[in-house]
Amino acid sequence: MKNFEKVSIANEARVELHDKLNLTGAEISINELPAGASVPFVHSHKKNEEIYAVLEGAGSAVIDGETVQLKAGDWLRIAPAAKRQFFASEKTAIKYICIQVKAGSLEGYTMTDAIV
Amino acid sequence: MKNFEKVSIANEARVELHDKLNLTGAEISINELPAGASVPFVHSHKKNEEIYAVLEGAGSAVIDGETVQLKAGDWLRIAPAAKRQFFASEKTAIKYICIQVKAGSLEGYTMTDAIV
Repeated sequence: MKNFEKVSIANEARVELHDKLNLTGAEISINELPAGASVPFVHSHKKNEEIYAVLEGAGSAVIDGETVQLKAGDWLRIAPAAKRQFFASEKTAIKYICIQVKAGSLEGYTMTDAIV
Repeated sequence: MKNFEKVSIANEARVELHDKLNLTGAEISINELPAGASVPFVHSHKKNEEIYAVLEGAGSAVIDGETVQLKAGDWLRIAPAAKRQFFASEKTAIKYICIQVKAGSLEGYTMTDAIV
């Protein structure tokens, strides 16, 4: 496998990066929901922690029945077993990243994993 | 641990999310380099794959001696052992996310890890 891969992402409703970048430690998707739209199902995970970043717009997530308001600049960690569903605001679209990683998989990081 | 955590990020030169979000499968930093600036060292990793996303602006990465041009919308995977250094463009700042995950740690994802 090459020591790096790059892709340039244009505006699309959903892009999945795992195969495009040959990722081995994460799946990452870039998602856009139009105003008033939602992901059409509630889901949870077996092993994966999800981390969401809101890039543009606004909306909300319902997590185990609790509504969390979301706007650009917000980051959210959700534990595997939590039941979640994402909604755009009624008035504006929401663009967000979803990062899936195996919960508990990270060992060292930054100064404990880096070689400078 | 709570089933979710949220933080709202303002404009800062560097934000690290591991402790703010109680992440267990990744470290994520949000970084901004002013025009003409660079990360002041070359580094590689012991176990972590890094994934970079350029949010705003432009710049470049030098990876094992190869220069890769970067602009908003670009995503980059870098293998642990590759030697890397990041630069803002001479004319514009660059804002980017860096996601560290343990290489090879992801098992299932999306439909093979989700419970719908």
